[in-house]
Amino acid sequence: MIKIVAKGILKPGAKEEYLKFAKELVTETRKEKGCISYSIYEDINDASILTMLEEWVDEEAIKQHNNSEHVLKIVPELRKRRESVEINLYKEV
Amino acid sequence: MIKIVAKGILKPGAKEEYLKFAKELVTETRKEKGCISYSIYEDINDASILTMLEEWVDEEAIKQHNNSEHVLKIVPELRKRRESVEINLYKEV
Repeated sequence: MIKIVAKGILKPGAKEEYLKFAKELVTETRKEKGCISYSIYEDINDASILTMLEEWVDEEAIKQHNNSEHVLKIVPELRKRRESVEINLYKEV
Repeated sequence: MIKIVAKGILKPGAKEEYLKFAKELVTETRKEKGCISYSIYEDINDASILTMLEEWVDEEAIKQHNNSEHVLKIVPELRKRRESVEINLYKEV
């Protein structure tokens, strides 16, 4: 199992639209066979930080996700609305 | 439920000792009543990044954890062995 933490810092004023797109991405991604969990979280101390916490069965599932229609359509919309993103893929030690 | 992502970047050569302390912290923390899950992960693309992924019932549980004997004993040992740490507390949106 692989976990992903994708931490985004939003542009000022972009939150409402960002969340609309992110929630659509959540709905579509959860239908994928290799997706164990996929949810969006807000930092308790900084409302401009929105992070996707994800669990995937393996690297192949992540590859398929990254090439899916919903990612190719929605991720550019998220990108326009954030200052930066930091993505880490993890395996348990 | 609150999730915590505590991402640490280790000093060169510190990994073996860091993991020994981190695993002791995992064992003790999992005994806490307010802890849902608590595990250590390694970045797949950068072995110097070790991240604790945590789930807690509420803020009170985190407060108790931060004041626990094992945190007060072990966390300074982790701190000596890492370059930096980035801690985010999250609620689901």
